[in-house]
Amino acid sequence: MIERRAVVLLSGGIDSTTALAVAKAEGYAVYALTVEYGQRHGVEVEAARRVARALGVREHRVFALDLRAMGGSALTGDLAVPKDRPPEAIAEGIPVTYVPARNTILLALALAWAEVLGAETIVLGANVLDYSGYPDCRPEFLRAFEAMANLATKAAVERRMRIRIEAPLLHLTKAEILRKGVSLGVDYALTHSCYDPTPEGRACGRCDSCLLRKKGFAEAGLLDR
Amino acid sequence: MIERRAVVLLSGGIDSTTALAVAKAEGYAVYALTVEYGQRHGVEVEAARRVARALGVREHRVFALDLRAMGGSALTGDLAVPKDRPPEAIAEGIPVTYVPARNTILLALALAWAEVLGAETIVLGANVLDYSGYPDCRPEFLRAFEAMANLATKAAVERRMRIRIEAPLLHLTKAEILRKGVSLGVDYALTHSCYDPTPEGRACGRCDSCLLRKKGFAEAGLLDR
Repeated sequence: MIERRAVVLLSGGIDSTTALAVAKAEGYAVYALTVEYGQRHGVEVEAARRVARALGVREHRVFALDLRAMGGSALTGDLAVPKDRPPEAIAEGIPVTYVPARNTILLALALAWAEVLGAETIVLGANVLDYSGYPDCRPEFLRAFEAMANLATKAAVERRMRIRIEAPLLHLTKAEILRKGVSLGVDYALTHSCYDPTPEGRACGRCDSCLLRKKGFAEAGLLDR
Repeated sequence: MIERRAVVLLSGGIDSTTALAVAKAEGYAVYALTVEYGQRHGVEVEAARRVARALGVREHRVFALDLRAMGGSALTGDLAVPKDRPPEAIAEGIPVTYVPARNTILLALALAWAEVLGAETIVLGANVLDYSGYPDCRPEFLRAFEAMANLATKAAVERRMRIRIEAPLLHLTKAEILRKGVSLGVDYALTHSCYDPTPEGRACGRCDSCLLRKKGFAEAGLLDR
């Protein structure tokens, strides 16, 4: 049997961890790629390492790429991380935590590794419900990236390798994502969500990401340890 | 008058230097982006700095991104750089100096900076004649990247910013590129082409890139200092 390989973008948060668990459950040999892009929440990378170990990936690479040099985002230190926003405000528009062209860059790096590995599938935890306005989580963006990727590589031209971009959580709520993960045996205590943790790595409890996490656990009827 | 900004991908070789000169001549305020991706020919970066200074860019950023971690290319040290190949061999197929998904990654980084700057044009020196098989220099790839880029950013969604990918040298021979550059006042002594320079930074004279440079200067009737 030919091994089916997938490159999974793994930040160490709830969504990418669940997406990785889904890829494993689908029988892929998983190659996890974490990009340390100078985000405020560098403790994410430690969470990604824990998750990769716990879920049993074939290989986990942490790739350094300092997007702080580009500026333009609260996640890379240019702007303040908003706190205590109500759910309606979080759902509206594109937040300042948007990182310019981030998913394009992350998927481009995943594509490079996928080509070297001969992996035809790239998995990411994008979903459209929590932040309706995030441009690079939308299905039309993901389809356009896939079309471009299938023209971009030597493997596509010489070996007719077809790249597929899979976003298994695209239309799920945070509560549905958590229930799916729990059904696959994910221990969410390994994950990290906060955009603006304390120097000791503790979650702030007040940024959009912390608030969405709390709301998701509450709605799923689960306890967040 | 509103300033028209362009992000130009600048490696420091003949093609990207000429593309930059074309963008200047078209009246763009030029923001040059050089990506140091762990290529064997790191002396390129010094050439890029000389070119950016000489041609008068608004800003020049050198961005570090170590693609050696991905492997799979002679340019990042995985494979030997071929030498003394005849022109027919150079023109055929995709060479081992191909770097997996390189132009996708470079354009993704340019897109991020373009979004922050409000630049609607991204310029690169891609051309299809010397290496017919390079997948990520083909017009269909560039069009697909452009389509994807116009779905990828907050600026596209909120400010209706339209990104254009311009490759002004796409269908020119090396000799035509050199003549165009000379007509725009480019001093090619500033540029660097070799894929495998000596530790002192001298060109090998035998790799595909050196051979194409020699051939181009000969055909253009120019002297390469």
